[in-house]
Amino acid sequence: MSIHKNDLLLKALRGDTVERPPVWMMRQAGRYLPDYIRLREQYDFFTRCRTPELATAITLQPVDQVGVDAAIIFSDILVIPQAMGMEVLMEEGRGPLLPATIRTQADIDALISTGAEESLNYVLEALTLTKKELNGRVPLIGFAGAPWTILCYMVEGRGSKTWDRAKQFAYTEPALAHQLLDKITLITIDYLKAQVKAGADTVQVFDSWAGSLSPADFSRFAQPYLFRIAKALQPEAPVILFPKGSWYALKDISESAASGVGIDWCISPRVARELTGNKITLQGNFDPAKLLAPIPEIKRSVKEMIDEFGPQRYIVNLGHGITPNVPVDHARAFVDAVKEYSS
Amino acid sequence: MSIHKNDLLLKALRGDTVERPPVWMMRQAGRYLPDYIRLREQYDFFTRCRTPELATAITLQPVDQVGVDAAIIFSDILVIPQAMGMEVLMEEGRGPLLPATIRTQADIDALISTGAEESLNYVLEALTLTKKELNGRVPLIGFAGAPWTILCYMVEGRGSKTWDRAKQFAYTEPALAHQLLDKITLITIDYLKAQVKAGADTVQVFDSWAGSLSPADFSRFAQPYLFRIAKALQPEAPVILFPKGSWYALKDISESAASGVGIDWCISPRVARELTGNKITLQGNFDPAKLLAPIPEIKRSVKEMIDEFGPQRYIVNLGHGITPNVPVDHARAFVDAVKEYSS
Repeated sequence: MSIHKNDLLLKALRGDTVERPPVWMMRQAGRYLPDYIRLREQYDFFTRCRTPELATAITLQPVDQVGVDAAIIFSDILVIPQAMGMEVLMEEGRGPLLPATIRTQADIDALISTGAEESLNYVLEALTLTKKELNGRVPLIGFAGAPWTILCYMVEGRGSKTWDRAKQFAYTEPALAHQLLDKITLITIDYLKAQVKAGADTVQVFDSWAGSLSPADFSRFAQPYLFRIAKALQPEAPVILFPKGSWYALKDISESAASGVGIDWCISPRVARELTGNKITLQGNFDPAKLLAPIPEIKRSVKEMIDEFGPQRYIVNLGHGITPNVPVDHARAFVDAVKEYSS
Repeated sequence: MSIHKNDLLLKALRGDTVERPPVWMMRQAGRYLPDYIRLREQYDFFTRCRTPELATAITLQPVDQVGVDAAIIFSDILVIPQAMGMEVLMEEGRGPLLPATIRTQADIDALISTGAEESLNYVLEALTLTKKELNGRVPLIGFAGAPWTILCYMVEGRGSKTWDRAKQFAYTEPALAHQLLDKITLITIDYLKAQVKAGADTVQVFDSWAGSLSPADFSRFAQPYLFRIAKALQPEAPVILFPKGSWYALKDISESAASGVGIDWCISPRVARELTGNKITLQGNFDPAKLLAPIPEIKRSVKEMIDEFGPQRYIVNLGHGITPNVPVDHARAFVDAVKEYSS
């Protein structure tokens, strides 16, 4: 365990008392930052991901420029389908495309579920380099996509509003779906453990499309795999689960091996606390669109949100990624409001 | 009040005991039906909406071909912005476009909030003609968009995943937003009352983008207007509210003037009943993607869903609109499973 000058995030995840809650933002290294846009104009997406120096520079931008209390490594959840042998194309502004989707037993058999440490070595190198550059200023977060969300892309082949094909596959061929989820889980666990070894102080698992499932289907196709990952990682680093939209699972999640759970803004802090008790650290849940409001309104809303969650066992964040149209000084106002907080 | 051979829907809305729950599907008159596609190839969207004979023919298709227990008039929620004086373009497969969006006090002042009975006379004619053609077979549902959802389109100008601009407008200029919501509410009440006079037995209010709001913002920008509409219509016809995604408001909604509330599949029947008690009729909440599963799986899931809701104070429906890729015999299996239901 490394020593940090600012270890608010890790304290909050452990449930230790903090002077104020830590703050970071999902997609904090992203398109609202002019310096990121400049790099984006020079290097394509996978070059940015696969060049440790670039990934590190991008990861550090919001720490230096916005003052967040944690860095999250610049990467993408679709590196896992790539490591499993699938082709993933990323066209700027058009979203990902996986030309050869998963349909059959043979498709699943052909997938690789080992060797993440080699195939995703570039992420591990970026983590190690970032860790060095951070020099203990703030903790470093690693991440991966959750098995259900990765299955969505593997079966659907691209982003979707409804994830019809992915769900049709799961509802029609549940045994195949579970085989696929199992394979994704295996390699994801190896990958996250390697991230911790390479320098990640905590890891977040993004289940971005969990909310497309009913509570019953979430408990079949998403939750067991999230919980396996949390349990496997728990001895090595605290785990934050973010099953976006799955408020109905909060009680179960609070009893899992996870240390933290991300929530979106479609649940009130009070209800989220009621469902989870004091058994898990909550992370969220500012409406990203509210970062487009005037700065005094942002600051007022942040203070109100912290008051409602309470400052302990709480990580201030957005309920989803920051959008490209947010002015940098609005992002900074969000962070400043947390730093200025007193109850 | 007209007399129906099949009045299951109205009985369920009144809370009367039924032999089995009624069933209909959102977007039941739509692209999964080959006869609809044929009409769509001949006539553009607004011609279909504005020609009472065409709207009636489309409205009757799922009654005749799928056997649903209610007809819902073929129309669109964006007829209200049109009636208020805005240009609305509808390009097939591309979603709506409102070129001149609402931004300022002057924009709002220029909007018309009266005269729906004249400007939307074509919908009323379609209702009257459909009513005649139905000849009492099943009840006829009228509908409108909810004020918040209509504001979303008026301010954003097109569909959106995040409704950033609409929300920025509401968060930055709340007084203007409330003025706009008020004007939409006024004309919507007139329009729905006229629909009832023209033949609608009940009306549904679609708040498709309610779920983009936090509980606090829903209670500011959506709920008061939904409740005003329900209260204004209650003496004339039962009202079904469908604030998609806003599970957190279910308790309040159960205490409103509405007779029914639609819910999506991201809440279990048990929790929805717990939140609403026996004070309101629940409608929903089959995952539309499950209609892509094999027929025996559809039938099994429908039976399980009815068992969980219980057959009284319940209207079987999807949790969102039926998608174009559903085979007609799967839609029919969904309806048949309800008709075959015995607890």
